[in-house]
Amino acid sequence: MAHLTDQEIASKATIRPIGEIAEKAGIPDEALELYGKYKAKVDIKNLDGNADDSKLVLVTAMNPTPAGEGKSTVTVGLADAFNQLDQKVMVALREPSLGPVMGIKGGATGGGYAQVLPMEEINLHFNGDLHAITAANNTLSALIDNHIHQGNELNIDQRRITWKRVVDINDRELRNVVVGLGGPTQGVPRQDGFDITVASEIMAVLCLATDLMDLKERIGKIVFGYTFDKKPVTVGELGVEGALTLLLKEAIKPNLVQTMEGTPALIHGGPFANIAHGCNSIIATNTARKLSDIVVTECGFGSDLGGEKFMDIKARFGGFKPDAIVLVATIRALKMNGGVAKTELGNENVEALKSGIVNLEKHIENARKFGVEPVVALNDFVTDSDAERNFVLDWCKERNVKVALTQVWEKGGKGGIDLAKEVLAALETENNFKHLYEDELPIAEKIEKIVTEVYGGDGVIFTDKAKRQLKEIEDNGWGHFPVCMAKTQYSLSDDPKKLGRPTGFTVTVRELIAKTGAGFVVALTGDIMTMPGLPKVPSANAMDVKEDGTSTGLF
Amino acid sequence: MAHLTDQEIASKATIRPIGEIAEKAGIPDEALELYGKYKAKVDIKNLDGNADDSKLVLVTAMNPTPAGEGKSTVTVGLADAFNQLDQKVMVALREPSLGPVMGIKGGATGGGYAQVLPMEEINLHFNGDLHAITAANNTLSALIDNHIHQGNELNIDQRRITWKRVVDINDRELRNVVVGLGGPTQGVPRQDGFDITVASEIMAVLCLATDLMDLKERIGKIVFGYTFDKKPVTVGELGVEGALTLLLKEAIKPNLVQTMEGTPALIHGGPFANIAHGCNSIIATNTARKLSDIVVTECGFGSDLGGEKFMDIKARFGGFKPDAIVLVATIRALKMNGGVAKTELGNENVEALKSGIVNLEKHIENARKFGVEPVVALNDFVTDSDAERNFVLDWCKERNVKVALTQVWEKGGKGGIDLAKEVLAALETENNFKHLYEDELPIAEKIEKIVTEVYGGDGVIFTDKAKRQLKEIEDNGWGHFPVCMAKTQYSLSDDPKKLGRPTGFTVTVRELIAKTGAGFVVALTGDIMTMPGLPKVPSANAMDVKEDGTSTGLF
Repeated sequence: MAHLTDQEIASKATIRPIGEIAEKAGIPDEALELYGKYKAKVDIKNLDGNADDSKLVLVTAMNPTPAGEGKSTVTVGLADAFNQLDQKVMVALREPSLGPVMGIKGGATGGGYAQVLPMEEINLHFNGDLHAITAANNTLSALIDNHIHQGNELNIDQRRITWKRVVDINDRELRNVVVGLGGPTQGVPRQDGFDITVASEIMAVLCLATDLMDLKERIGKIVFGYTFDKKPVTVGELGVEGALTLLLKEAIKPNLVQTMEGTPALIHGGPFANIAHGCNSIIATNTARKLSDIVVTECGFGSDLGGEKFMDIKARFGGFKPDAIVLVATIRALKMNGGVAKTELGNENVEALKSGIVNLEKHIENARKFGVEPVVALNDFVTDSDAERNFVLDWCKERNVKVALTQVWEKGGKGGIDLAKEVLAALETENNFKHLYEDELPIAEKIEKIVTEVYGGDGVIFTDKAKRQLKEIEDNGWGHFPVCMAKTQYSLSDDPKKLGRPTGFTVTVRELIAKTGAGFVVALTGDIMTMPGLPKVPSANAMDVKEDGTSTGLF
Repeated sequence: MAHLTDQEIASKATIRPIGEIAEKAGIPDEALELYGKYKAKVDIKNLDGNADDSKLVLVTAMNPTPAGEGKSTVTVGLADAFNQLDQKVMVALREPSLGPVMGIKGGATGGGYAQVLPMEEINLHFNGDLHAITAANNTLSALIDNHIHQGNELNIDQRRITWKRVVDINDRELRNVVVGLGGPTQGVPRQDGFDITVASEIMAVLCLATDLMDLKERIGKIVFGYTFDKKPVTVGELGVEGALTLLLKEAIKPNLVQTMEGTPALIHGGPFANIAHGCNSIIATNTARKLSDIVVTECGFGSDLGGEKFMDIKARFGGFKPDAIVLVATIRALKMNGGVAKTELGNENVEALKSGIVNLEKHIENARKFGVEPVVALNDFVTDSDAERNFVLDWCKERNVKVALTQVWEKGGKGGIDLAKEVLAALETENNFKHLYEDELPIAEKIEKIVTEVYGGDGVIFTDKAKRQLKEIEDNGWGHFPVCMAKTQYSLSDDPKKLGRPTGFTVTVRELIAKTGAGFVVALTGDIMTMPGLPKVPSANAMDVKEDGTSTGLF
């Protein structure tokens, strides 16, 4: 049977004028700014409502295969299922980065019959948020280098500029560059590098700000480098937080779209979860909470990455908590964690499931560590066998773990009704949510706690450089920040090859970077790159656009 | 008397919902895509109308002062005057580049009471066109470098890549860079550089394309570099023209806004006129021609730059002609061309006017060379004296040159009624428009003709490099392209210090670049830079945004 691509399914779907969706969501006209017929921005200053009587459902996952386990798909499908059960629901998602879309990933708007629309526009420029972030980030870079070139009143050491330029493109060629060549009128030569836009602190700041003035304050606090006597220098000292915030005044407004079943969806902000904190914006989550009774939101990758950061960073700054946690698991990922090669994941293998399910077990324990009893969503694939499905469902039931088979890819919301009912039951009882650590714990101990409790490791090794940076961070008064771990998504450890539920490992922190605007400290482990590369045959090669503006190749 | 800033005037203006403006312009609902309440894109495939029964008014200028002579202001004010005279009129303008807005220039949406609204949004990200162009340009760069890194099937010589990356920021630090450092997994090291986005061939191509499929065809023809055996390599050979065009499918739609007096305005595309061809898109001009009886459009800088390129490039590719030409002159620019220092331009000096007016004389002759009798618009400044005004008006009348004093900055359309009446009279009679040269003339002779006839020089000197490139261009079969001169805007010559009406000079062409997608050959003269720098105190430092999203500092 030939399957339709996600893009083909999306192109056949009925899409409603966004005004209808806004009305359904209870967004008044004066808060709605249309972007074409099917997208809008929401001006939150024109919005009433109390966020605290809403329930928040967080969708996270086990450690994934490279193709992903359909977390966005389950998030969308679960919201559609709530919608079918007549719940007042909204979904809050991250917005896709253009780099991976053009590179290896294709679209990032759910899949099958659980997608958000219009998928082409969301996957391409959407409403310009990422472009605005790129512009603000690179305007700051130009202003810093110009300041040095024009006399350097702030005594900035060009060898100690930590602020990098960004592009929203997978461009390995820009990872390590030398800029400012060409002689005295062409800037000051220095070593530099580009990150992908979603790794920019501007993205993190936009996603963690609670309103425009909080955004400006946070941008003012960003440290972009150090003086020759090693003192941090902030955007506020350069005097350009107003201009940078001005560049973000539209980007800060959450974007309203719809699922294929007409459920209102806010898609806003998209930091990667391996190199950044991996959640949609606090503003979007709070807007959805104001507007609806149930909000379904996702975080990037597994409970060890996006999940932990949701609890310890986003929930902390946002002042909310997850009322329920959904853990997405797939037969494929369980088998891979049981040692099966990527090319063999389509073949039945219950033995591999048995050895791989320890990975899921750890993620279940992780949710409980935060005081929340999770619901496992077994996301169905056409290659799964009944024996395999039953093994996972039985395994969960035997351990009193709530579980539901979801078939939202194939059936839309209808395929998520069982899951929705389990989650509704979970929402009935108040949980005992708590952060993993308190602000006061020193940075090194925060990392230690994440590694031992969430990753299941024995401890942390700090390189000499990281040790020096730890001291600098505490000396600069940033020790109270939460930690944003940069780690591979493929393993609970910092080694992507250690699958299943590794034990007896340590995690090496090679570098620490204080993001003083975002208000967290990034701990870099393993080979996490902040600028991806393109594959030998990029997705871009298969893309095309026709005379009427319709396109192909976005998967 | 304290004057209001342009931004203050704009913020006090009444702005109408863009749907009302669209209705006035005769744009049907199905062709209108709202971007917020006051901006829209026009989907031209849903638009009827015959362009050829419309009259096109081109606004150009004499050689300007660094502050500019208010060409956009006159263009907007003239359209508003036609509107007041009950003509069915639209204005077609270029969209501003963010780089100069943040750098030295402030807003670029007209001034005083002759502005387009909403000025903040137009000056910042507008509807995302420039960001889409940046993304398409840099995606191509990443795809080229990735192709080389992944085995280089096309045999591209990394020393002969002519395609540069771009940012829409004045960032001198990126003029000369080395990319691909860091070892074998981090790309192929090579020398590179960034241009400002408006200098990208993607911008030129977008502005010269007649529809989406023409855009794709042109992008496929872009030569981005040469093989080791010096053969040109095109985007089509790389197989990514579909993806790049897909990135531009929204950007190709012209943007509808309004003047402060409610005249419909299309703002679309913005190549610089000193380094590129300097006109808004053919699609916007043709859309305005379809919709209205009179279209007022501008080109960048003087008749020697944007004017010549409008006639020889845009009009050639667009298949239309200017039915009237307005030449904007100011007392200030005339005095500067008469040798007065910038700081003294506010003081009465009729003697300097007498020696500077030869500059205007040459621009009048230039319009006539294209077969069009111009109308001089003397754009009034508060520092001008009656003696000065009368001198210019009399000088024109004595020579049978049509002239009108315009006070649109101070009075809006009312201040442009005299000018509008002169232009209406000019539109009554058919002109004898012709291009300066035919396609068949060799590139060197085209340049010779521009220099001798439009600039008033004695001839052209080609550097050895340029001579070699001339031969390559003819050998590659690109000799039939028109020429896009890159020259200083401050002088009719290639030396910004030669003011007035210089004679006895030669122009040195130091480099020639074939833009095979745009379909023209760029001839670089003097020190024209394709990446501006920021001044010591950039405009960004004065910008701020308030809690309600309103801003200050955009001038």
